[in-house]
Amino acid sequence: MTLSANKSSILPSGGGATLLDPSDTVILLLDHQSGLFQTVKDIAVADLRRNVAMIAKLATLLDIPVITTASEPAGSNGPLMPEIHEYASHAVYVPRKGEVNAWDNDDFVGVVKATGRKTLVMAGVWTSVCVMFPALDARAAGYEVYAVMDASGDPSEMASRVSLARFVQGGVKPTSTNSLLSELHRTWARPEAGDLAQLYAMAAPNYAAVIESYQRAQDAVRNAG
Amino acid sequence: MTLSANKSSILPSGGGATLLDPSDTVILLLDHQSGLFQTVKDIAVADLRRNVAMIAKLATLLDIPVITTASEPAGSNGPLMPEIHEYASHAVYVPRKGEVNAWDNDDFVGVVKATGRKTLVMAGVWTSVCVMFPALDARAAGYEVYAVMDASGDPSEMASRVSLARFVQGGVKPTSTNSLLSELHRTWARPEAGDLAQLYAMAAPNYAAVIESYQRAQDAVRNAG
Amino acid sequence: MTLSANKSSILPSGGGATLLDPSDTVILLLDHQSGLFQTVKDIAVADLRRNVAMIAKLATLLDIPVITTASEPAGSNGPLMPEIHEYASHAVYVPRKGEVNAWDNDDFVGVVKATGRKTLVMAGVWTSVCVMFPALDARAAGYEVYAVMDASGDPSEMASRVSLARFVQGGVKPTSTNSLLSELHRTWARPEAGDLAQLYAMAAPNYAAVIESYQRAQDAVRNAG
Amino acid sequence: MTLSANKSSILPSGGGATLLDPSDTVILLLDHQSGLFQTVKDIAVADLRRNVAMIAKLATLLDIPVITTASEPAGSNGPLMPEIHEYASHAVYVPRKGEVNAWDNDDFVGVVKATGRKTLVMAGVWTSVCVMFPALDARAAGYEVYAVMDASGDPSEMASRVSLARFVQGGVKPTSTNSLLSELHRTWARPEAGDLAQLYAMAAPNYAAVIESYQRAQDAVRNAG
Amino acid sequence: MTLSANKSSILPSGGGATLLDPSDTVILLLDHQSGLFQTVKDIAVADLRRNVAMIAKLATLLDIPVITTASEPAGSNGPLMPEIHEYASHAVYVPRKGEVNAWDNDDFVGVVKATGRKTLVMAGVWTSVCVMFPALDARAAGYEVYAVMDASGDPSEMASRVSLARFVQGGVKPTSTNSLLSELHRTWARPEAGDLAQLYAMAAPNYAAVIESYQRAQDAVRNAG
Amino acid sequence: MTLSANKSSILPSGGGATLLDPSDTVILLLDHQSGLFQTVKDIAVADLRRNVAMIAKLATLLDIPVITTASEPAGSNGPLMPEIHEYASHAVYVPRKGEVNAWDNDDFVGVVKATGRKTLVMAGVWTSVCVMFPALDARAAGYEVYAVMDASGDPSEMASRVSLARFVQGGVKPTSTNSLLSELHRTWARPEAGDLAQLYAMAAPNYAAVIESYQRAQDAVRNAG
Amino acid sequence: MTLSANKSSILPSGGGATLLDPSDTVILLLDHQSGLFQTVKDIAVADLRRNVAMIAKLATLLDIPVITTASEPAGSNGPLMPEIHEYASHAVYVPRKGEVNAWDNDDFVGVVKATGRKTLVMAGVWTSVCVMFPALDARAAGYEVYAVMDASGDPSEMASRVSLARFVQGGVKPTSTNSLLSELHRTWARPEAGDLAQLYAMAAPNYAAVIESYQRAQDAVRNAG
Amino acid sequence: MTLSANKSSILPSGGGATLLDPSDTVILLLDHQSGLFQTVKDIAVADLRRNVAMIAKLATLLDIPVITTASEPAGSNGPLMPEIHEYASHAVYVPRKGEVNAWDNDDFVGVVKATGRKTLVMAGVWTSVCVMFPALDARAAGYEVYAVMDASGDPSEMASRVSLARFVQGGVKPTSTNSLLSELHRTWARPEAGDLAQLYAMAAPNYAAVIESYQRAQDAVRNAG
Repeated sequence: MTLSANKSSILPSGGGATLLDPSDTVILLLDHQSGLFQTVKDIAVADLRRNVAMIAKLATLLDIPVITTASEPAGSNGPLMPEIHEYASHAVYVPRKGEVNAWDNDDFVGVVKATGRKTLVMAGVWTSVCVMFPALDARAAGYEVYAVMDASGDPSEMASRVSLARFVQGGVKPTSTNSLLSELHRTWARPEAGDLAQLYAMAAPNYAAVIESYQRAQDAVRNAG
Repeated sequence: MTLSANKSSILPSGGGATLLDPSDTVILLLDHQSGLFQTVKDIAVADLRRNVAMIAKLATLLDIPVITTASEPAGSNGPLMPEIHEYASHAVYVPRKGEVNAWDNDDFVGVVKATGRKTLVMAGVWTSVCVMFPALDARAAGYEVYAVMDASGDPSEMASRVSLARFVQGGVKPTSTNSLLSELHRTWARPEAGDLAQLYAMAAPNYAAVIESYQRAQDAVRNAG
Repeated sequence: MTLSANKSSILPSGGGATLLDPSDTVILLLDHQSGLFQTVKDIAVADLRRNVAMIAKLATLLDIPVITTASEPAGSNGPLMPEIHEYASHAVYVPRKGEVNAWDNDDFVGVVKATGRKTLVMAGVWTSVCVMFPALDARAAGYEVYAVMDASGDPSEMASRVSLARFVQGGVKPTSTNSLLSELHRTWARPEAGDLAQLYAMAAPNYAAVIESYQRAQDAVRNAG
Repeated sequence: MTLSANKSSILPSGGGATLLDPSDTVILLLDHQSGLFQTVKDIAVADLRRNVAMIAKLATLLDIPVITTASEPAGSNGPLMPEIHEYASHAVYVPRKGEVNAWDNDDFVGVVKATGRKTLVMAGVWTSVCVMFPALDARAAGYEVYAVMDASGDPSEMASRVSLARFVQGGVKPTSTNSLLSELHRTWARPEAGDLAQLYAMAAPNYAAVIESYQRAQDAVRNAG
Repeated sequence: MTLSANKSSILPSGGGATLLDPSDTVILLLDHQSGLFQTVKDIAVADLRRNVAMIAKLATLLDIPVITTASEPAGSNGPLMPEIHEYASHAVYVPRKGEVNAWDNDDFVGVVKATGRKTLVMAGVWTSVCVMFPALDARAAGYEVYAVMDASGDPSEMASRVSLARFVQGGVKPTSTNSLLSELHRTWARPEAGDLAQLYAMAAPNYAAVIESYQRAQDAVRNAG
Repeated sequence: MTLSANKSSILPSGGGATLLDPSDTVILLLDHQSGLFQTVKDIAVADLRRNVAMIAKLATLLDIPVITTASEPAGSNGPLMPEIHEYASHAVYVPRKGEVNAWDNDDFVGVVKATGRKTLVMAGVWTSVCVMFPALDARAAGYEVYAVMDASGDPSEMASRVSLARFVQGGVKPTSTNSLLSELHRTWARPEAGDLAQLYAMAAPNYAAVIESYQRAQDAVRNAG
Repeated sequence: MTLSANKSSILPSGGGATLLDPSDTVILLLDHQSGLFQTVKDIAVADLRRNVAMIAKLATLLDIPVITTASEPAGSNGPLMPEIHEYASHAVYVPRKGEVNAWDNDDFVGVVKATGRKTLVMAGVWTSVCVMFPALDARAAGYEVYAVMDASGDPSEMASRVSLARFVQGGVKPTSTNSLLSELHRTWARPEAGDLAQLYAMAAPNYAAVIESYQRAQDAVRNAG
Repeated sequence: MTLSANKSSILPSGGGATLLDPSDTVILLLDHQSGLFQTVKDIAVADLRRNVAMIAKLATLLDIPVITTASEPAGSNGPLMPEIHEYASHAVYVPRKGEVNAWDNDDFVGVVKATGRKTLVMAGVWTSVCVMFPALDARAAGYEVYAVMDASGDPSEMASRVSLARFVQGGVKPTSTNSLLSELHRTWARPEAGDLAQLYAMAAPNYAAVIESYQRAQDAVRNAG
C-alpha cells in the first residue's frame, strides 16, 4: 500500500492514513451516456443515475474537480446524463476522438495531469471498459486510483464480478458511492453537515425516511410541549 | 366481471370495455409513512416512492381525486411521504383514530362515498394490511377495486406473493404503476402527451434514457443539416 | 365469498365485512417440530420460529384459542418448538396416532368442533401437507379457513408456490403473519396497544428499530428541553 | 371453459379438446419496439427477441395470420424489431393513431374481425399494457385469448407477476413460447417436422446442442461402421 | 370442487374428503427423456430425477398403476430415464406415434381408460406441454387431474410460473412430490412406515440427516446404558 | 502473513498458528444504530442484530474486552442497539465528536491502545465505512484486523461485495460470526461448552433444532428404558 | 506459487506444472456430520453429499489416501455421512477430543504427517471453520492446500463468500468438486476411463443425461443397421 | 504486473500500457462442445454461444489467430459448436488424445508456441478445468493469460466464483466478452467501426436496440425534412 506519509488529511490519531485526501483528488466521470445505460444489467439505471448525480453534488459541495468525457459525442451512444453538469457546473468536459479508453486520448490525460492531483476517483459505463482501461493505465502511470462500482455499470452480473476482481488484481481500489461520500465527508463537525445529510439520503434512500421520522418524532414532542 | 355497459371511456371499437373509467375513479393512498417504509422488503424504497410520486403527478395532470390517510399521524409510524401532497395539492387528507383498516373509519368511508365514484384505485403500506383490508371491504360494498402492487409495500417477498393471490381471490384487480398510467392515459393524441412522457420516465427509468437518446439522435441530424 | 352477515367484528362503516371475526376464530398450529424444520427451504428457520412465537403471544394477548398437534410425538420428527406452549399457556395439545392429516384424527377434529368456532387459522410444517390437507378438508366441512404462509414451511420454493396456488384453488384464504396480526388487532385505540407494538417488532424486525429511533428522537428533545 | 365442441383440431381420442385450433387462430404482435425493449426487466432482451422471431417463423411455417401494430410509429418508442416482418412476410402491419390500447383503434379491430377467426394469440411490450388491455377487451368481446408471457415484456418482475395474475382473473389464458409452439405443432408425424425441430432449438437453446450431440453420436457409429 | 362422496379414503372424521383416493388413482409419467432434461431450467435435473424416482418407488410400495410414454422413442429426445421402470417394474410403457400431446394418442388414452380409475396424477417434461395438454384434455373428459410440478420441468422460470397459473385456471390441481407422497401415505400406522420414511429422505434430502441424527442420538444413550 | 511466533494460543501440533489469540484480542462494535439499520440491504436486520448480540454474549463468556462507539449519539442515526451493553456489561462506550471514522477520534484510539492488545475484531454499520476506515487505518498502524462481515451491514449487495474485496486488498482478514465464535471457542473440552452450544444456536438457527431433536431422541430412549 | 520442480505429474509439454500431483496428495474430509448438514445454507444438502460421495469413490478409484475426522463423535452434531467410508473403505478415521480445529489435534496431524504427502485436499462442514482453520494452519506449516468449496458447507451465502476470500488471502487454493475430479483424472487415455465417466455424472448431473442420450443415439443407428 | 515496455499498442499518452497488444495475442477456444454445454449452469447456453461466436467474428475482423481443440472428438462430449469455424475460417483445430488439460498435449502447445505470440486469451467449457489448467500452466511458462469468463462455462454458480478467485490467485487476468471486444477494438476511428458496432450488439443485446432506435430517430427527422 502506497501511503503518502504527509497527507494533509491524516489526523494526529493516525486516522485517515489509508483514506483518500480530498485536496489531492479529482473525480473522472466516464461515458455516462443514455445509450450505454440501456445495456447496464448489474445495477438499476435509476440507482446508477442517482449515485452519479450524488457524486456531482458532492464534488460541488466539497470543491473537488470533476472531468467528464465521451468517446463519440454525436453517435448512437447518446448524450451524457445531464444531471452531471447541472449539479457540478465546474466540471470540465473533454470530448474524445473515438478512443474507447480515455487514457488513450492526449487531451484527457493532459487535463488530468494539469490538476496536479494524484488520486483519481473514476466511475463510468461500462465498468469493465470505460473505467477499467484508464484505471489500469493510470495506476501504471503512478496514480492512486479508486473505482466506484455502483456509479458505474456493466452488461451482466458476471462481467461486474469480473471487473471487481480485475480492479483488485491491478492495484485499483474498488469502492461504493456511499463509501466515497463518507471518505470525503470525514466528520459531521463541519459547516456542510446539513447538505451532506441530504446526500446520504440519495446514497441510501431509506436514510431519507430515517430523517423524516426523526423530525416528525421531535415535532410531536415539541407540539405536545 | 362487472362491466358498467355505458362507461364513457368505452370506444366504438369496444376498446376500454374492461378498463377503468377515469371519470368514475378515485385514488386512495394509504399509510405511505416513513416509519413503515423501513419495513418494506418487496420493493426498494426509492422505487416505491417514485411510483407513488408519479401517481400523485398523474392524478393532478388528469384531474382525478386523491384521498390520503394515516392511522396514527403522530406516532412512530412517521409522517406521510411529503411528495404526495406536494405533487397532488388537491389531495384530501383524512386522519384516522387508530383504525388499522381505513374502511373501519367513518370519516374515510364518508369522503370516498362523497365523491360519488365507484372505482377505487388503492395503494399503501403494507399491501397485505393497509391496502388489503379496505380493498376487500370496498369490494364487498360493491366498488370496483384496483390494488397497485408496486406503489405499495409488504414486509417480505412471501407476504407480497400472498397479497397478490388474496387480491385475486377476493375479486380485487391487481395492477402495476406503469399499467395504471397507461390505463388512465389511453392515447398519445391528447394535449397532455408531453407531460405524460415525463411520467413514463418515472414509471420506467430506462425510458428517460430512451427519450434522451432520441432527442440527441435527431439533434445530430439537424445540426449536421 | 361467504360472509356471516352479522359478525360482531363488522363496524357501522362496513369495515371488517370481509375480515376474520376474533370471537369466531381458533388458531391451529400443526407439526412445528424441530426435525421437520430442517427440511424447510422457503423461509429461514429463525424467521419461521419468530413468526410462530409471535402468533402464540398474539393469541394469549387477545384471548384466542390455540390447538397444537403432532403426528408422531416420539419419533424422529422431533418435539414441537417449545416457544408455542411457553407463550400460549392456554394452548391445547392433541397428540395424533400417526395420521399425517390432522383432520383424519377424531380427537383433533373433536377439539376443534368443541370450540364452536367456525373460522380456522392454520399454520404448520409442511405447508403443502400438514396445513394443506386439514385446510382443504375443513373447508369442505364448511369452515372458513386461513393459511398463514410464513408461519408455515415447505421443502422448496417451488412447493411453496404450488401450495399458495392450491390454497386459492380450494377456497382457503392465504395470509401472512403480519397481516394476521393486523386483522386481529384492528385498532390502536385499545388497551393492548403497547403490547401489540412489540408484536409488530417481531413480525417485521425493522419495526423494532423504528420504535427505538422514535423514542431516542423524542428523548433528545426532552433532554434538551 | 368455452369449448367449441366441433373444432377441427379435436381428435377421436378427445385430444385437443382444450387446445387452440390453428385454423381458428390469428397471432397479434403488439408494439415490439426497440425503445420499449430497453424498459423490459422480466426477461433478457435477447431471449425476448428470439422468442418473437420464432413465433414469426412458426406462423409462416404453419400458415397462420399475423397482425403487427405500433402506437406511435415515428416516435421515441422506436421501430418494430425487423425480424418479425422479415420472417413472417405475410404479416399485416396496422399503424395506430396514438392509442395505447390496440383495441381502441378501429382499424386494428377491423383487421382482426376480417380474419373471421376467434382465437387470438397475443404478445407485446409491455405485457401489462399493450397485451393486457386488448386481451381483456377482446375477451369481453367474446374471443378466446392467449397471452404469450415470454414473447412479451414488463418493466419489473413484480409487474410481470401482476400481469400473470390479472390475465387469469380476466379469463385470458397465459402461455409460453415453447408451449405455443407445441400446441400448434401437435405431432412430429407431419412434413414440417424438420423445420419445427429448428424452432424448438430457438425456443429452448439447449435443444440445439441436443440435436448436435445426437447427430454427432450417430455419425460416430456410421463412420466407424 | 367435485367430490366423490363415497371415496373409500374418507374417514369418519371427514378427513380425506378433498384428498386423492389411492384406489382410484393412476400415475402418468410423460416424456422424462434424457434429451429433454437438458432443456429444463426451473428445477435442477438431479432433483427432478430423484423426485421421479421416488414416485416410481412409491407407486410400487403402495401398488398404484403407472403408465409411461414417449412421443418419439428413437429420436433426439433420448431414452426415458431408466430409474422409472427399474423402480416400478409394473409400469406400462405406451410408445406414441409422434403426437406431442399424449391424449392425442388412442393407445395411451385406451390404457388409461382400461384402468377404470378416474384420478390421474401426471408429471413430465415439459410441464407446459407434455403435462399441460393431456392434463387439460383429461380434465375436460371428466377426470380429476393432479400435476406434480417438481417431478416435471419447464425451459424457464417464467414458463414454470405460467404453467402453474394455467393449471389452476383449467381446473387441474397442482401439487409437489412431497405432498403427493403424504397424500398417498396418509398415516404412519401402517406396515410400510419404514419404507415410507426412506421415501421422505428422497423427497426432502435434509430428512435423511434428520433420521441419521435421531438414530445416532439414541444409540449414544443405549451404548452409554 | 504476520505470525506472532509465540502466541499462547498455538498448540504443540501447530494448531492455531494462523488463528487469533483470545488473550490478544479486543472487539470493536461500531455504530450499530437503529437509524442506520434501516439502510442495511445485504443482510436481514433480524440476522444482523442476532449476530451482534451473540458476539456480545461471547465476549462476556470468554472475558474479551469490547469497545462500542457512535459518531453522533443524539442525532438521527438513533441509539445503539441495546442488546450489546445488555449482554456485555463490561463493554466500554466511547462517544465520538462527529467523526465518521472512529480511528479519527483520539479518545477511541486511546481506549484501544490502552488495552495493550494488537488483534482487533471489528463489526459495524456500514461495513464499507464504519468498519472499513478504522480497519484500514488500524492495519496501517500495525494491528492485526478482522472484519466480521455478517455482524456488519452495507446499503446494497454490490457495496457488500466491494467491501469484502477492499478488506482483502488492504490486508484486513474478513470473517463471519460463526467463524469468529469457533475461532475463539477452539475446543468443546472446556467448562463453557454448554453455554457455547447456546451461542451456536444463535449463529446458525437450524442448530437450535438440532439440539432439540437430539435431546428428544435421547429422552425417547430413556423414557422407554 | 511454490512448484515442486520435479513432480512426477508434470509432462514434457509443461502440462501439470501448476496442478496437483496425485502421488503427493491426501484427501481430508472434516466433520461431514448429519447435524451440521442442517445448518448448511450455501449448497443444497443433496448436492453436498453427492459431491463428497463422488470424492470418496474417486479416491478409491485412483488410490489416494483419505482421512476423516469428527470433533465430538457422540454429540449432537451427529454421525459422519456413511457414504464416505462405504465408498472409500481405505479411509482412516481419527476421532478428536473436542477440538474444533482438526489441526489442534495431535493424532490428526500425526496421521497426516505419516502419509509423507505434502498436498492436502480438504473439504468439510463448516467451510469457514472446519476447513478454514486446518487449511490456514497447514499452509503455515508448509503444505500445499486445496479447499473444495462445494464439498463443504457454510451457514450462509455471505459466510461462503467470506470463506472464499479468506482462503485466497491465506494462500489456500480454492477449487470445486468437478475441477478436483479433472485435476486428478488428467486423461481419458487410462484404464479407469469408464469409471471416471460415471463420476462426472455425479459431479454434473446433466452429464448423466448426456451419456444416456449418446448411447441411445448410437443404438438407434446400430439397430437400424 | 509484467509490462512489455515497448508494446506497439501503447500510445504516447501512456494509454494501453496495461492492455493486451493485438499483435501479440492468440485466442484459444477450448472444448466448446455440445455435450458439455448441457452441464453449464453459470450462464445461459444461448448467451455463452453468442459470446463465443462474437469472439470468432472479432478474431476474423481484426486478423487474430484462433486455435480450437477438443479432448475426445468422437466421444459423448459432442462436436464443437459449429459457429466458431464458420465465423473464423482461419482457426486451426488441434485434436487431443484424451488429455483433459490442453497444455498436456504436445501438439497443442506446439501450435501455440509456433505463433510466436505471448499473450493468450482463453475461453472454454468448463472454466474450472478446460480453461483453468492450461491457463495456470501457460502462466507458469511465462505467458500473459486472459480468461474470458462469459465465453466459458462452469457447472454451478459456486464453481464459477471459485474459478474467478483461482484465476486471480494464479496470476491469470479474468475478463468478459464485452471487455475483450473493447480492449482489442481500442478506437472507433478505424475502418472496421461499422462491423465492430454489430459485434457490440452481440456482446450486449440491448445495444442492438440502441442502434435501431438511433437510426429510426434520425430517419424520422430526415423524412420530415
